[in-house]
Amino acid sequence: MLANTPEPPYYAVIFTNALTDHTEGYEEMAERMCTLALQQEGCLGFESARNAAGEGITVSYWKNQQAILQWKKHVEHLEAQEKGRSNWYKYYHTRICLVERDYSFTP
Amino acid sequence: MLANTPEPPYYAVIFTNALTDHTEGYEEMAERMCTLALQQEGCLGFESARNAAGEGITVSYWKNQQAILQWKKHVEHLEAQEKGRSNWYKYYHTRICLVERDYSFTP
Repeated sequence: MLANTPEPPYYAVIFTNALTDHTEGYEEMAERMCTLALQQEGCLGFESARNAAGEGITVSYWKNQQAILQWKKHVEHLEAQEKGRSNWYKYYHTRICLVERDYSFTP
Repeated sequence: MLANTPEPPYYAVIFTNALTDHTEGYEEMAERMCTLALQQEGCLGFESARNAAGEGITVSYWKNQQAILQWKKHVEHLEAQEKGRSNWYKYYHTRICLVERDYSFTP
């Protein structure tokens, strides 16, 4: 679940969304996008949670803004974004953030 | 689900966590903390999702770093953090971020 990110600074993309009832093909595509993104230069990892009502938050972590922009323009990812808007997502909100500091707890 | 945040820049706190099996009192405390945080100066809203395995992401949004630090030191919140570490959380990771830009989709 936890992304193994380096010392800040680095970037986070917070993707808050809700799924429609038409989710055929969504899971496969989400997995494919995750695998593909992790192969891109500058991708540091993912964290994701979705509740039973279909509301979810996915956070992806990136070395810099350039890596985020390149991923946004990736051909396969563009196709996935298009299907997301036409079929899968009720809505989404994307926020691009500079991670300035972090701390963690494990007993 | 979506926090009604203003135009960037503002701050986000990404709180990624997993619950233990000892969650008695957790839900009430989480609700109380959300209500209390929203009454603090500079709190802009919350987004949260938790899956069936108990893994969750809560993102809170804030006007500035000072508001985040004040909330971290709030007496009731300090008690909640202590109970969180001793009882409720298997682990957590907190990241403090400057939101630089955002965009959204609603059909």
